[in-house]
Amino acid sequence: MKKQADTLDALRAQLSTFARARDWDQFHNPKNLAMALAGEAGEVLDHFRWLTFEQAGHLTPETRAEVALECADVLLFLLRLCDKLDIDLAAAARKKMAINARRYPVSKSRGKATKWSKLGRDG
Amino acid sequence: MKKQADTLDALRAQLSTFARARDWDQFHNPKNLAMALAGEAGEVLDHFRWLTFEQAGHLTPETRAEVALECADVLLFLLRLCDKLDIDLAAAARKKMAINARRYPVSKSRGKATKWSKLGRDG
Amino acid sequence: MKKQADTLDALRAQLSTFARARDWDQFHNPKNLAMALAGEAGEVLDHFRWLTFEQAGHLTPETRAEVALECADVLLFLLRLCDKLDIDLAAAARKKMAINARRYPVSKSRGKATKWSKLGRDG
Amino acid sequence: MKKQADTLDALRAQLSTFARARDWDQFHNPKNLAMALAGEAGEVLDHFRWLTFEQAGHLTPETRAEVALECADVLLFLLRLCDKLDIDLAAAARKKMAINARRYPVSKSRGKATKWSKLGRDG
Repeated sequence: MKKQADTLDALRAQLSTFARARDWDQFHNPKNLAMALAGEAGEVLDHFRWLTFEQAGHLTPETRAEVALECADVLLFLLRLCDKLDIDLAAAARKKMAINARRYPVSKSRGKATKWSKLGRDG
Repeated sequence: MKKQADTLDALRAQLSTFARARDWDQFHNPKNLAMALAGEAGEVLDHFRWLTFEQAGHLTPETRAEVALECADVLLFLLRLCDKLDIDLAAAARKKMAINARRYPVSKSRGKATKWSKLGRDG
Repeated sequence: MKKQADTLDALRAQLSTFARARDWDQFHNPKNLAMALAGEAGEVLDHFRWLTFEQAGHLTPETRAEVALECADVLLFLLRLCDKLDIDLAAAARKKMAINARRYPVSKSRGKATKWSKLGRDG
Repeated sequence: MKKQADTLDALRAQLSTFARARDWDQFHNPKNLAMALAGEAGEVLDHFRWLTFEQAGHLTPETRAEVALECADVLLFLLRLCDKLDIDLAAAARKKMAINARRYPVSKSRGKATKWSKLGRDG
C-alpha cells in the first residue's frame, strides 16, 4: 500500500473520495477544473516573475516550500480533470513521451530549444 | 518494472534522461519550466473556452484525445520543474491533501465552493 | 489633456515614467513582463473558477470591483510589455481586428464559436 | 474620429459591433471571456519560454510581429470582458495606478522588485 503512495492512480482515487465526501462533484465540471488548473499554474509562475535565472535556480527555503505546494495544486487539479474526462494521465504521459522521442531525435535536437515543427526534416 | 510505470518518480527519471541525452538542461532553468507549465495549462484551457458545461462533460473523442496530450504536457513540465527544484512532487501532493483536509472539514464545506479563507471559523 | 486620458499611448507613457522613477526597468525585461501578464490573467480567471454562467454574468459588487483591478493589472503589464518591445498596441489591435474580419465573415461565422481554421472554406 | 482610434472606448465599441453582427454575445459570457483572456496571455508567454533575457529583448522581426498580434488578442478579449462586466477599463487602470503609487513610494521601492505587501511599513 505505502509503496503505491506516489502512483497517479492512487492520488486520483484519494481526490475523488475527498470531493465526493464534500459533495463537490457538482463544481468539478471539466471546464471549471481546466480553469483551476490554469489558475494554479499561474500561481507557480508568479513566484518566478522577477527572478534572474540564478535566483530561480536557488530559491530560498521559504519560497521553495511555497512553490512545492503550488505545484501540488497543479497536480491535484490535473488529476481531477483527467478523472472527470476519463483520461488515464499516466498512459497519456507515456504516449506523449513516445511522441516527443519521435519529434525530437537526439541527432537533430541536441543542444537546441527549437520546436519540433521548425526542426529541419532532413539531415 | 511495468507495475511502477505510473509512479511520479519513474516519470521524473525518464524525463531527466530524455533531457540529458539532448543537452537540454541548459534550457530547463526553473523560470523557463514555470513558463512552459503555465503555457501548457493555457493550451488545456483553450479547448474549453467556448464550451457549455454540458459540452465540456461530453467531449468529442477527437477533442478528448487532444486534451489528454495537453494534460500530459502539463504533467511532464511539472515533473521537470520539481526535479530541477529538488521538490518531491508526490510528497508535496500528500502534504497539500492533508492541508486541504484541515481547511475544508466536511461539516463546513459540504456542497459549497467557498474558499477556505472565507469559510466561517465557527460552527 | 483630460480627453486623452484613456488612450493607450497616454497610459503607456505614464507607466514608463512610473517605472523609471523606481529604477524598475532592470526588472522589466520582456520575458519577465510576459510572465507578469500571464500571472495577472490567471488572477482574473481565478475569480470565475467555480461560477455558473449566471453567476459570472451577475458578479457581486465586491467581486466586480476586484475583477476590475485585476483587469487593470493585465492592461498595465500588457502596455509595459509592448513598450519594451516597441510594439504599438493600438495599431496591433486594429491590425488584428482587420484579420478577424477576414477570418470570420458574417456569412460563415454567424452564431458559431468555430475557430476560423475550422470554418469551411466554401459556402 | 481618427484621432480617437486608440482610445479604449473606441476599441470596445468596435468589438461590440463585431460580436453583435456575428451573434456571438451568446458565447461571450464573462466566464468564457476570462478563459479566452488567460489562454491568449499563455500564447504571449509561449514565445518567451526558452529565451534568454538578451534574446527576449531582441526578438527577431518575425517573432516580434507574432507577439504583437498575440498582445492584440489579449487586449481585445480584455475589452470584451470589461464590456460584458460593465467595467470602465481606463478608469480601472487609473485607479490601479493610483493604488500602485501609494503602495510603491519611490523611497521604499527604488531598485527593488519586492511586492508591496512585503515592503517595510516604516523607513
